[in-house]
Amino acid sequence: MRGTLIYGPGDVRSETRDDPTIIDPTDAIIRVSASCVCGSDLWDYRGINKVTEPTPMGHEYVGIVEEIGQDVQHVKPGQFVVGSFFASDNTCEICRAGFQTSCVNRQYAGAGGAQAEYLRVPLADGTLVATPEVPSDDLLPSLLAASDVLGTGWFGAVAAGAGPGKTVAVVGDGAVGLLGILAAKELGAERIIVFSRHADRQALAKEFGATDLVVERGDEGAAKVKELTDGLGAHSVIEAVGTQESMLQAIRSTRPGGNVGYVGVAHDVSLPGEELFFSHVQLLGGPAPVRRFLPDLIDRIWTGRINPGKVFDLELPLSDVAEGYRAMDERRAVKALLRP
Amino acid sequence: MRGTLIYGPGDVRSETRDDPTIIDPTDAIIRVSASCVCGSDLWDYRGINKVTEPTPMGHEYVGIVEEIGQDVQHVKPGQFVVGSFFASDNTCEICRAGFQTSCVNRQYAGAGGAQAEYLRVPLADGTLVATPEVPSDDLLPSLLAASDVLGTGWFGAVAAGAGPGKTVAVVGDGAVGLLGILAAKELGAERIIVFSRHADRQALAKEFGATDLVVERGDEGAAKVKELTDGLGAHSVIEAVGTQESMLQAIRSTRPGGNVGYVGVAHDVSLPGEELFFSHVQLLGGPAPVRRFLPDLIDRIWTGRINPGKVFDLELPLSDVAEGYRAMDERRAVKALLRP
Repeated sequence: MRGTLIYGPGDVRSETRDDPTIIDPTDAIIRVSASCVCGSDLWDYRGINKVTEPTPMGHEYVGIVEEIGQDVQHVKPGQFVVGSFFASDNTCEICRAGFQTSCVNRQYAGAGGAQAEYLRVPLADGTLVATPEVPSDDLLPSLLAASDVLGTGWFGAVAAGAGPGKTVAVVGDGAVGLLGILAAKELGAERIIVFSRHADRQALAKEFGATDLVVERGDEGAAKVKELTDGLGAHSVIEAVGTQESMLQAIRSTRPGGNVGYVGVAHDVSLPGEELFFSHVQLLGGPAPVRRFLPDLIDRIWTGRINPGKVFDLELPLSDVAEGYRAMDERRAVKALLRP
Repeated sequence: MRGTLIYGPGDVRSETRDDPTIIDPTDAIIRVSASCVCGSDLWDYRGINKVTEPTPMGHEYVGIVEEIGQDVQHVKPGQFVVGSFFASDNTCEICRAGFQTSCVNRQYAGAGGAQAEYLRVPLADGTLVATPEVPSDDLLPSLLAASDVLGTGWFGAVAAGAGPGKTVAVVGDGAVGLLGILAAKELGAERIIVFSRHADRQALAKEFGATDLVVERGDEGAAKVKELTDGLGAHSVIEAVGTQESMLQAIRSTRPGGNVGYVGVAHDVSLPGEELFFSHVQLLGGPAPVRRFLPDLIDRIWTGRINPGKVFDLELPLSDVAEGYRAMDERRAVKALLRP
C-alpha cells in the first residue's frame, strides 16, 4: 500500500509499505477513505520533536472496515467508521469517566500511520464509531474533522466550561481553535472572542460564530479581552497552541473563577504556581478524549447542523502528502485533506 | 489596645497599639473574641516571606461588632460575627460566582492585624456573617476555625470535587489539611487517604474521617495512593502545603480526569506543562472564598454537626502570642488560639 513516513525535519515521503494485518484479536483493519495533516505533525516536521528514525505519520482517519479480529463484536466489515487518535477499550473506569485518551489500555492509533491506504486500529470496539450508513462524499471532510480537530476543539470548549451566558475566548486560530469556536457556539456561548491576525482565518472564525476579533497577543491580547469584558476577563478560554506564551495569554485572559481548557500539546511550558494560585483560574486539558464526543459529533454532522469540514482548505492525493505539510508549515493552508 | 507585630524572622511581639477607627463608611470595628496563628503566618516567621517593617499580624477572627460605618446595613452592633481574611463586597460578578477572595473591591481584612483586641473590617456587609445569637464559649474555637482553616479546607475539598463515591487524598496534615478531611467526609466522600507521619495528627485525621494513612511522601507517597486505588489514583486530591514537592505529589496522586484542589499558598512552585497536559488532572485553587461557605459552615457548627475547633491544641492569652508562633514553628502545636 501507499503510506507516509517522516525521515527528518522537512522530509516527508510517500512510499510503498506493507499492508497492515490483524495482530491482536481486538484489532480492525480499515481502508482509509480520507486522512489529513495535523498541526501537531508540524512539531516533527519543524524539528521541534526529534525524529530519530523513519516514522509512519498520521493519526486522523475515516474509512471502511475491511477486516476484524476474532474478539471484535460491535464493529463490522463494510461499515464506515470514525476513530480517534488514541485507541481505548471504552470500558475501564477512566474511559467511563470520559477520559478515553487516558484509558488504562490506551494505545496510539496512529502507530501504523493513518496517512496511508490502510490502517490497523487496536481496540476497535472501544475506538471506532460507525456512521448510520456509508456517507455521501460531501460529508467526508466533516466526519474526518470529528476524528481529531473537531473533537479536540470540542473538548477545549467543554473543559473551559463554555455554555449559555458565557463569554469564551479562543487562543489559536488553527483548525483546533477554529473548531473550538464552532463548539463554543454549539454549546450556547453568548460571546466568542478569537485572537487572530490572519484574514482568511478571521473569516472562518466569524462563520463559525466568533463575535469579536483581537489581533494583539500575549499580555496585550489579554488586556484587550479584559477591556471587552468590563475588566474581568472571559469566563472560558480555549487554549489551542501549547506554548508558554499562549498558556499565559489564556490564563491572563480568564476571570477569577473562570476556566481554561487547554488542548494545544504543551511544549516547554512551565506554569508559575503563585500566579496560578492567585488567579483563581481553573485548568483542565490534555489529549482530547474524542471518543467521548464522537456519537454526538457524528449526529450533528449527519443531520447537517454543523460543517466542521470547512477547516480543510487544501485537498491533495495521498501521494502528494509532502505538499500538504509544506503548505501548512508555510501557513498557505489551515489544514490539508488527503485522499488515497 | 493590645496587638501583635512581627519585626523579623522569629521576632513576634505583643504591644500596645492605637485602637482602630472607622475609616470608610462600609467599615465595622469588632471587639475580637478570639483569633489565632495561621500556618501561612509561619512563612513570615521563618523568614521565607521577607518582613521589611514591623507588620500587624493575624487574619482569622470572631468577635462582637462594636461600631459600624454609616453605609453598613446588615451588620449591627452587638452581633457576634465571623469574617474572612479577604474583605469582599459580595455583590460584584466575581463574588456572585462564588470567588469572593477575588472580589473586584477586595481588601485584606488582616491589614490591621487580627491578633489584637480590636479589628477594623472593611466592607462589613459583604465580609461578616452573624451567628443566630452570641454563642456559648465552647463554640468559639469552631466558629473561629470557620473564618479561615475550615473554610480553606472546605474549598480545597469542593475544588477537588470531593463527594459521594469519591476517593479523596489529602496532602498536608496541618489544620487546613485536617479540616479538608472533615470537609471531604461531610461532602460524602467514600474513602479519605491522608499523608501524615505525626501520631497526634493521624489521630485527629482519623477522628475527622480519614480511612487510610500514608507515611510516604513525594513520588513514593503518590505510588502508595495508586496502590490503594487499583493503580488509578484518587479522584480528588486536596493540596494543603504549597511547595513544589507537595503540588507534584498531589498531581501524581490523582487519576486521569480527577481533580486537585490546592489551597496551600504556593511558594516557588513551577508546574511542568507537559506532565500536566498528559496527566488529565484538573486544577483549581487559590485563596479560599471562605465567605461563600460561611453561612453553611456556621449552621453545621451551630447545630453541633461538626467540631472543627478540635484543631486548636493550644490556647494562650493574646499577650503570649509569641509562644503560639514558637509552638507551631516547632510543631509542638497544630494551631494556637489566642484570647484577649
